[in-house]
Amino acid sequence: MARALVGEFLGSALLAVVVVGSGIAAASLSPNDVGLQLLENAFATALGLAVLILVFASVSGAHFNPVVTLVDAALHGARPSAVASYIPVQIVGCVAGAVLANVLFDVSFAWSTTDRASVPRLVSEVVATWGLVLVIFALVRTGRSHLAAPAVGAYIGAAYFFTSSTSFANPAITVGRAFSDTFAGIAPASVLPFIGAQLLGGAIGWATVRLLFPRVQPAVG
Amino acid sequence: MARALVGEFLGSALLAVVVVGSGIAAASLSPNDVGLQLLENAFATALGLAVLILVFASVSGAHFNPVVTLVDAALHGARPSAVASYIPVQIVGCVAGAVLANVLFDVSFAWSTTDRASVPRLVSEVVATWGLVLVIFALVRTGRSHLAAPAVGAYIGAAYFFTSSTSFANPAITVGRAFSDTFAGIAPASVLPFIGAQLLGGAIGWATVRLLFPRVQPAVG
Amino acid sequence: MARALVGEFLGSALLAVVVVGSGIAAASLSPNDVGLQLLENAFATALGLAVLILVFASVSGAHFNPVVTLVDAALHGARPSAVASYIPVQIVGCVAGAVLANVLFDVSFAWSTTDRASVPRLVSEVVATWGLVLVIFALVRTGRSHLAAPAVGAYIGAAYFFTSSTSFANPAITVGRAFSDTFAGIAPASVLPFIGAQLLGGAIGWATVRLLFPRVQPAVG
Amino acid sequence: MARALVGEFLGSALLAVVVVGSGIAAASLSPNDVGLQLLENAFATALGLAVLILVFASVSGAHFNPVVTLVDAALHGARPSAVASYIPVQIVGCVAGAVLANVLFDVSFAWSTTDRASVPRLVSEVVATWGLVLVIFALVRTGRSHLAAPAVGAYIGAAYFFTSSTSFANPAITVGRAFSDTFAGIAPASVLPFIGAQLLGGAIGWATVRLLFPRVQPAVG
Repeated sequence: MARALVGEFLGSALLAVVVVGSGIAAASLSPNDVGLQLLENAFATALGLAVLILVFASVSGAHFNPVVTLVDAALHGARPSAVASYIPVQIVGCVAGAVLANVLFDVSFAWSTTDRASVPRLVSEVVATWGLVLVIFALVRTGRSHLAAPAVGAYIGAAYFFTSSTSFANPAITVGRAFSDTFAGIAPASVLPFIGAQLLGGAIGWATVRLLFPRVQPAVG
Repeated sequence: MARALVGEFLGSALLAVVVVGSGIAAASLSPNDVGLQLLENAFATALGLAVLILVFASVSGAHFNPVVTLVDAALHGARPSAVASYIPVQIVGCVAGAVLANVLFDVSFAWSTTDRASVPRLVSEVVATWGLVLVIFALVRTGRSHLAAPAVGAYIGAAYFFTSSTSFANPAITVGRAFSDTFAGIAPASVLPFIGAQLLGGAIGWATVRLLFPRVQPAVG
Repeated sequence: MARALVGEFLGSALLAVVVVGSGIAAASLSPNDVGLQLLENAFATALGLAVLILVFASVSGAHFNPVVTLVDAALHGARPSAVASYIPVQIVGCVAGAVLANVLFDVSFAWSTTDRASVPRLVSEVVATWGLVLVIFALVRTGRSHLAAPAVGAYIGAAYFFTSSTSFANPAITVGRAFSDTFAGIAPASVLPFIGAQLLGGAIGWATVRLLFPRVQPAVG
Repeated sequence: MARALVGEFLGSALLAVVVVGSGIAAASLSPNDVGLQLLENAFATALGLAVLILVFASVSGAHFNPVVTLVDAALHGARPSAVASYIPVQIVGCVAGAVLANVLFDVSFAWSTTDRASVPRLVSEVVATWGLVLVIFALVRTGRSHLAAPAVGAYIGAAYFFTSSTSFANPAITVGRAFSDTFAGIAPASVLPFIGAQLLGGAIGWATVRLLFPRVQPAVG
């Protein structure tokens, strides 16, 4: 268990480094086109997230996300103590990674000032988190967990563009991103509304998975 | 069957969210370069479409496209009732997804005003749909259906650029895209010509598949 | 054999549609940044080429390239008649595809006026073709032919940027690209020097493959 | 052994051609946006590096990087003579490749004048090299070496953006990049600090691999 928690901490931290760090680079290097900034941020995130899942899958399950941990427990019956230890580790990991990204780019600490709370963005977080849960557990329950790494990376890379919130879809990274006043940041006042929307999306995702994939199938290939 | 129809509806809706939503984001965030807008739209669509096929393949076959359903029936003998239930679900799903994309980006409803009917674009739709049918059924008939997800995503991502129509290649998404007056939209008056071209491309694709892949081979790997 | 030749013709034609068509779109839609044009062209080519190899591999071997056909014959002993029938089909296919790309984008026919013959670009073609031969036959001779589709797509996508010639690496597509006076074109006077450089690169590639992969290993996986 | 050294030389040289060459192209073709230059450079490197690992894996192990060779020896007990022959070959290969990239783009030789030594960039190199070691040996020690090619390509493509140093993460390519006064260059005075940071990152990576992946598992799939 200790090894799993170390893995979950390191993976969550590296995820925040990838998301926040590439956002800082993009905004600094492409100052004249926000879409290009988001493309650079999405390119790095899609590739980096896929690799992190590949690395940590066998160590901790590579959740990096309280919604994933909660839905996994609801579907497959994890012990409450495992859930209770994973979630704070994910949050602390994402905060540590955001702070490390600041250090890598020589950015002084400041709370993010990017207000993101609006109805379209909150609906976007519901949809984005619902889709993320659907992707992960569709693969898990059809015996194709080994495809989760590229699938989740690709999903998030796409979702940066097909939602107006740029798809945080993860309460831990939402908290972490408040700790950097840069491209990927989110003002602390927007954090709780985002997390609420993500939990709602996760719940709908859980119900959809139960409907579409009622039984767990054995692994293939 | 009901579960398959739910899957086909959700997949079609999410496909429209990906295509229309990322188009709205791209046009808004990269206002000065249409090619960059299309690159962002193609990046999101290639990744998102691949993931959607992966998720819904075992639920509904992940057609999301009346041409695919029709060619599949012609090649492999689906019941007419299955075809008759899939096609309206795909269309309604794509319309719902386009409307949801408007909501995610706070865009008021309006019929698209983008006139796309021209001979080069209609020929492009014939070629694009022909190629799509060829890609899907080449894989199906050589026992490699599990590669359809990345292959179809990659094909459509490329076809956004190698045709002048940006490759709709799908009557259901063509109808859906009429419901958003944004980057990916199509004026209602252009919808029927596009669908006609797509059906023609599908028919040529069916004949090409019969010629090049006369027999169905068992699955490999 | 007739079926293989039809496949080789269609695959070569579609390759030229992808390369020339996406070049036309890129130059037209991103007029202010040649690097962005090349990125769009490379994105479409990497994805499209991978898909075409996947589709036609079991039909014709998916060479689409006289250098590949020649090296394959030299390494693995194809009959001279097969080589003699493949090469003209590849060339005619690429010409047909380039002309079709003109049609899709409503571009009038004109010989390309893009002079590309220079020492750095010819050395680039030697290196690019050498690398292409190495990639393909490294995989074939280590029992991993099924990875040729993504590997060749990725290689060419990268080589568009790491050579000054944008890596034609294929005599058939070189001829075809003379038939479109657009982004991907090449002036007829530059065609023979390019083909000479490609044949030289192919010969060095053949020798390198013999050195590094002296024996054919059975298929894995 | 001689064949392995030839492979390691060629792979290291081609890696430098990809990195330096695509950097020259990007800076020349996209002069107005450094982020876009880096995106083009990262796109080409991610694809090219993945392909090179695929090609040379069975010949030399496809290290191309002294840190990888050293950590591999520390973890899995290679003979000191093997390490002593690989490292100079990697360095000479990367230098040869950087010089060849200059030739391909008709750039006269000059030592790089890009000073890169700063605390945030050196910390970035520690993190980048630590992550690279983690990715490679997580896969090796869980029986998934065949995924190293796409994973390492994806990791480096992401790391170009999520670090302020653009992730050299390799002492051999660091030396090679001093030989080209272009986009990817590094001033000779910055080379030793970068190598020191990379060795430190490699050592931390070695310890992390020992902690998270204490035992080597047999190959799967």
